[in-house]
Parts: sequence; structure tokens; C-alpha cells
Amino acid sequence: MNVDQIREDIPLSREVIYLDNASTSLSPQPVIDAMVEYETHYRANVGRGVHRLSQIAGQLYWDAHETVNRFIGGECGTPVFVRNCTEAINMVARGLTFRPGDEIITTVTDHHSNLLPWYALREKGVTVNVISPARNPMAGITADDISSAITKNTRLVAISHASNVLGSVEPVKDIAEIAHDHDALCLVDGAQSVPHFKTDVRDIGCDYLCFSGHKMLGPTGTGVLWMAEDSLEPLLLGGGMIDDVTTDGYLVASGYSKYEAGTPNIAGAFGLRAAVKYLNAIGMGAIEAHEDVLTRKLLSGLSGIEGVTIIGPPEGEKRIGVVSFIVEGLHPHEVAHILDDQYSIIVRSGHHCCMPLMQYLNLPDGTVRASLYLYNTEEEIQTLVEGVREIVEGV
Amino acid sequence: MNVDQIREDIPLSREVIYLDNASTSLSPQPVIDAMVEYETHYRANVGRGVHRLSQIAGQLYWDAHETVNRFIGGECGTPVFVRNCTEAINMVARGLTFRPGDEIITTVTDHHSNLLPWYALREKGVTVNVISPARNPMAGITADDISSAITKNTRLVAISHASNVLGSVEPVKDIAEIAHDHDALCLVDGAQSVPHFKTDVRDIGCDYLCFSGHKMLGPTGTGVLWMAEDSLEPLLLGGGMIDDVTTDGYLVASGYSKYEAGTPNIAGAFGLRAAVKYLNAIGMGAIEAHEDVLTRKLLSGLSGIEGVTIIGPPEGEKRIGVVSFIVEGLHPHEVAHILDDQYSIIVRSGHHCCMPLMQYLNLPDGTVRASLYLYNTEEEIQTLVEGVREIVEGV
Repeated sequence: MNVDQIREDIPLSREVIYLDNASTSLSPQPVIDAMVEYETHYRANVGRGVHRLSQIAGQLYWDAHETVNRFIGGECGTPVFVRNCTEAINMVARGLTFRPGDEIITTVTDHHSNLLPWYALREKGVTVNVISPARNPMAGITADDISSAITKNTRLVAISHASNVLGSVEPVKDIAEIAHDHDALCLVDGAQSVPHFKTDVRDIGCDYLCFSGHKMLGPTGTGVLWMAEDSLEPLLLGGGMIDDVTTDGYLVASGYSKYEAGTPNIAGAFGLRAAVKYLNAIGMGAIEAHEDVLTRKLLSGLSGIEGVTIIGPPEGEKRIGVVSFIVEGLHPHEVAHILDDQYSIIVRSGHHCCMPLMQYLNLPDGTVRASLYLYNTEEEIQTLVEGVREIVEGV
Repeated sequence: MNVDQIREDIPLSREVIYLDNASTSLSPQPVIDAMVEYETHYRANVGRGVHRLSQIAGQLYWDAHETVNRFIGGECGTPVFVRNCTEAINMVARGLTFRPGDEIITTVTDHHSNLLPWYALREKGVTVNVISPARNPMAGITADDISSAITKNTRLVAISHASNVLGSVEPVKDIAEIAHDHDALCLVDGAQSVPHFKTDVRDIGCDYLCFSGHKMLGPTGTGVLWMAEDSLEPLLLGGGMIDDVTTDGYLVASGYSKYEAGTPNIAGAFGLRAAVKYLNAIGMGAIEAHEDVLTRKLLSGLSGIEGVTIIGPPEGEKRIGVVSFIVEGLHPHEVAHILDDQYSIIVRSGHHCCMPLMQYLNLPDGTVRASLYLYNTEEEIQTLVEGVREIVEGV
């Protein structure tokens, strides 16, 4: 894997040290090119016309779904393009039929987008059980945590594959199995896993996998909801998702179309297709290995600084390159601001859309979070570690 | 207004005769540039970080809302960015509270996206009254049609500002007044009006105005729901739209953020901002006048061909540059195919997401539809008219 070559494709990677990848990633030139090519050569709507532009765009739009689906081993199910991972989870929450007394299990380590859509079902008499990691508050959820919480009323277990704060990787394969043993469904939020290591729905055995295109080199406004069965009620109704309409009713189409009412983000889909091809050409194994080297270096560097506490799982556990930490005596926003101002290092600070986790960990100000991707380098990690050290020494 | 200059900005306008603008418009270079600039210079998430990239992107994202809002005179309300006009209408249908016995008025001339979201409320005991034009089946709805249908149970009147099949322009200002006189709300689907003539929510007096960014030179994946009051229940819940979250509940933010959960289509928003600036620089009055000249020429040309029937309002009525027609003895798809193949003319054919209207007009195969925009020329219209004449003569 040639990081220099990748950085050549991403001008912004040479202007700043970008370590906010858990929020959104940077875009390589082939992704931008795919969008521009659409706009300049075959800009048209899809699935609606017999003319040449619509035919080209329509065929490529279909192929974008195929390409993304193969990337997650999803041929056995349906990949629906959505705006973001948040929309995907809301589609499941609104699209399943819940009855009073039904239970949903989610976790305190999950992102707001994997909490709020379930909370809203409480109005319908659904119980939402937000479980915590019993083993270690700063590590992730275990299969035992799920086993202890699941009941005969559990309809769905909704869990992140990897935490966007802790960096922990959850045993989603075991969790899906436990859910199925209890006749419950399993939704995996893959926002932080799909971009960073090979994620295969056949291996996990989940019913739903959602992820964000914009966190995996794709354009903003893109995300995916993969579903094993296309039995959800569609969230949106309108053009492009029906086979017949009268003044009395309508008949919905099948496949992904059913869930993509109205003109989709076509340019975004083409950019996402290019992003997946880009990742495939490098190989997810190589990306994971590269990020693992950087993550170890970052963890080892930060843990050697007095006054810095890493908020995450113990050493030796499987984790991703999301490293949260706090600096004694400094607000996380202050640390982020100094890193940006004095070192051109872009990190995130605050609650990372995980307020319940921050309350649970008693971190009202949140954390500083550095999150890596394939274009980051050892030198950049070194600069971050040295920067944090200087900040601590300057307090 | 310099059409040649505009065409210089849009390479595709010189490769084909693009007359499918009611479906989606072509993109001028400044719109593409705005997206590319974001990807290459300040690609970051918005509203989530203290770092420089997020600050730039966040400021511009806010300004995109302001720019779009001013474009429709919407400063008195809230402009929410959505994926498309379809999503906007679904947000209103799902976000208002309806009770059994409530009535909604929509029309047979409306697009599927302004029918299906209302149909779905029938399950809740809501009556959806799909009214027809009493005066002339091929003209639009009149204020009298609404007056005759409205009752004390009417909660909402949902109507297109301009028909995407007939080209008719509906008296939405009168209709909004009738609705309000009956304590009902008024939603205006501006997908075919906002791109083509000055549309001002203060003048119309509607409660909701929705439109598609991708039909007004903006990127795909963009649309707007303007609301007079931000009192709808949000459709999507998640990150970026809350002020506080615990394991027990959440407190939603105010303004447009409340309705834009998760990472938005940021590149799309910047493209839409550039599109509005582009339209503003030319002036909506000039655009309307230009399209009016072309429309008259097209109507006059087509109506002089025996065997061609125009499906639209009588001569002299206010209309937009959407011209539907049928050719005796030829399927609309066949006409569209020949126009594409032999004349490089891109038109739409079929039901145009208006199946109930096609049933009402007894046009099971739909129509051929030529729809204009600012970059079209008199020569292009002439080529279309001559093409249709040759096709008719060749039958």
C-alpha cells in the first residue's frame, strides 16, 4: 500500500493533518472525478426516461448498488442508498411494526443516531433497554452483556460494530446469533467498521447493516442500508418507487427502488461507487494493517504522557483507529483548538454525538478524539503526540 | 440575458438538445466548481467541530440556507435542506398530527409525490379528496375547484404550483387564502415553479413550500422544505438535531437543524447555493421571459402539425415551458426514442409520475414531454418542431 500515492490523490491531506475521519473522510480525486463526469457528460435523472442520458445514468446507478453490495458480501440482500447512516436507522425504526411490550436493546456506547430513533418508539409502548458494558466502562459491549439483557420480548438488538468514541470493536457476529436464538432481529451500525476493515454481512449474519458513504472516501449525502429481507414499510412515498398509482391507492415496486422515492443523490451514488472501487484496489486488509500500525503508535505515544488519559478499551483488544483522550486541566475544545492553531492538526472534541456515554463515563466535557484513515502517516501521528506533549507541558 | 454565455458554462447543452428539464436540469460550471472546491479545500463535517475546516464548511452551510431562503422571500420561516421535493412532502405528511375524520385535498394533476404521502394517511382514518379540474380536463385546477371541495374538516390543501405534465400554473395565492379561511394549512409543491419564475412565499401566503434543487441548476440529492412555523415533528432523529440526550430521552434543537439529522449533503448544499446565485445573477424575470418566448414558439410549431395534440391549458393562459403532446399512431416512448436517436433531442415520455392524471385524461401510454430551461434556444425549439413534423410525416 503506497500512502504517498494515496496522498497525491487527496490535496487536502497535504495541507493539514486530518484526524477527524470518524466524522467524515477526505475525498480522493477519482471520487471527485466521478461526480464531475456525471455533471458534465451524462447529467440526467435515473429510471425515468428512454433517452440516452437517462440510460447511461440509470445503468451506472444500478451498478453503484451492485458495487457497494459486493463490497459487504451483500448479494443475498438489498442495498438501499440513503443520505446517511442516521436515515438508515430511522428507516428501520419506522419501517418495522412494533407492538406495546416489545423490547429493543441498544447500548450506552452507541451514537445518538442509534438511540433516538428507538427512544421515539417508547411512545408506542416499546421498551428501550440501553445497556452498559458490565466488564469495563471504557471497553465495549460483550456478548455476555447482550445475553444478560435479552428476553423473550426482545424484537431487535441495535448495536454499533465499532464505537466512534472508544474505538472498541463489538462481537456483532455473536450478538446476531444471540438475537436470532431469541427470535429477535439484529441491526449493526457499521459507520465506523465498513470504512476500516472487511465487513461481511454473510459472516456477521445480521438483518440490517447501515453505514455512511461519506466516512469511506465517498461524497457527503451518501449512506447505505443493507437489508437481508426487503420487508420494511418504506419511509418515503412518491415517484420512482411504485409500479401503479390510481386515485385510490398504489402498488410499490420491489428491490432498492421501493425505498428510494424521488430523485436520488445520483452524483453521490457515482462518487460512492468510485470510493468503493478505490478502497477495493488498495484492499481492506492493507488498510486495516496500516491503520493498526498507526493506532498502536498513537496509543503508545499518548499513554507515555503524564496528564493524558486514553478513553478506550485495554491494550491488546481489537480496536479501530479512533483514539479518545482527555488532558488534565484542559477542556477538550481547548486542546482541539490549540492542535489546529499551532500544529494544523484537525481533531474532534466534545461529546461526539454520544452524550449518554459521556454521562456514563462522567466526562461532561467529552473527549479529544483523533481518528485515522488510510492516508495518515506515522509522521503525522508523531506530530500529534509531540503536540499533545507540548500542550501538557505548557499548562 | 446572454444564452450563449450560459451555454458556455454548460458543456452538455452543446452536445445534445436537452429538453427534459422538468425531470432534472443541467449543471453550470460554477455549481460543479462549488462542489469541487468543498472537496478539495475544506471537506469536513458541519456543526460538529471547533477546527478550521468544520468552521469554514459550517459557516458556508449556514449561508447556503440563508441564500436559498432569500431566493423565495422566506426570511419569516425556516428553510430545511432535504434530498428532494418528495422527501419534503413526506416530512409534512408524517410530521403533522392527523385525526380520523380529517380531510386532505389534493388534485388529480399532482405528481405521485404529492399523492402517495397523503394516501398513506388513509390508514389513520384521514379522507384524501383527489379533486379534478371542473373547467377543462387539460387545464389546471381553479380556485373554484378548491372552494367547492373544502369543508370544515379540511386540515390541509396540497397542490402543485405548476403541473409537470400540463404546464398549467395554479392560483396558489387564492388557494392558500381559501385554505386559511377554512382554518386549513396550504402546502405548495414548487418543483416546477421555483426554478422558472419568481416564487415568493410572502406573496403566496402558504404554510409550506417545497422544491427540488436539482431542477434549478443545483446538484442531485438537494431539495428544500420551507415552513412558516417549525412545528412539525421531525421525520429523522439522530446526531446534529438535538441539544441534549440521556438514556431516558432527548431535547431537540431549533431551526433547520431540528430537521436535518445526521451528516447532510454538504457538497450538494454548496452546489445549490451556487445555483441560486447563478439564477439571481441572471434574474428570474429574464429567465421567465426567455422561456415564455420559447414556449410560445414550441406551442405554435407543434399545433401546426396534423396528428399532434397538445395536452395542456388553452392558449393565452399562464403556463410554464412544460409542453406535453401526443402523436397519433405512435407510442410516446417511440417518439422520444426517434427524437433522441435521429435528432439528439432529449425529451421525456410516459406517465411523468402522474398516473392518475393519465387515467383521468384517458392517456394510458402517457405523453411526450418537452420541458425548457434558460439555456435552451429558439434553434433548438425549431429542430424539435421539425423533428416531430418529420416523424409524423414518416408514419
